[in-house]
Amino acid sequence: MHITDPIADMLTRIRNANNARHESVDIPASKMKKAIADILVREGYVKSAEVIDDGIQGVIRVTLKYAENKQKVLTGLKRVSKPGLRSYASKDELPRVLKGLGIAIISTSKGVMTDKEARKQNVGGEVLAFIW
Amino acid sequence: MHITDPIADMLTRIRNANNARHESVDIPASKMKKAIADILVREGYVKSAEVIDDGIQGVIRVTLKYAENKQKVLTGLKRVSKPGLRSYASKDELPRVLKGLGIAIISTSKGVMTDKEARKQNVGGEVLAFIW
Repeated sequence: MHITDPIADMLTRIRNANNARHESVDIPASKMKKAIADILVREGYVKSAEVIDDGIQGVIRVTLKYAENKQKVLTGLKRVSKPGLRSYASKDELPRVLKGLGIAIISTSKGVMTDKEARKQNVGGEVLAFIW
Repeated sequence: MHITDPIADMLTRIRNANNARHESVDIPASKMKKAIADILVREGYVKSAEVIDDGIQGVIRVTLKYAENKQKVLTGLKRVSKPGLRSYASKDELPRVLKGLGIAIISTSKGVMTDKEARKQNVGGEVLAFIW
């Protein structure tokens, strides 16, 4: 199947697995998606993200994280920029998600990073997604 | 017990009851809190909010709402303005919560309303809370 928006597909796979309280979810690999998954790990939303060689494209296995009583740690993911409607933010207008309760994932000239990191690095970029 | 921030207390009670998947939660009544509860009903985050006369202050009974498999409908509540640090927004800088996925509750000169309603009415006010 041809996927027109691989990042939206990634977020949907994680959302569905998380809703179903699965232990992990596999996602067709790409550099950009691995960078996003690494941010989710670094920011404490998921346990781990490892790339598994399947002899084709490779797979990112994201291991999900839950709190007591299987409460979600990762409560929401939203695609912001879309192939049909790209969304960019300059360094002075980087979004804040829920007053800092969540993060925005920004694709910048210095790599994929959170809104907080982009502010520190003083770069803007494409607003890929909100995570909270 | 003296409560320094009755609205924060209300949001915490709802958050806890919702996490525990309770059917309803009782909150000491006030006009402001009833206005907030009514918005939660109107926006589809909870089932109902009725005031019960307990002979004292009155109680708001909020009946919670869940989706299939007891998934949350109301996923988050955050106090924004606080007694020690009030937060105001002019009509031109009313916040958007998660790009419209959530709502901000604004106390305006025309009453307590959502950010969308405030934009329509062309008024700013105190940003009481974010709901999503």
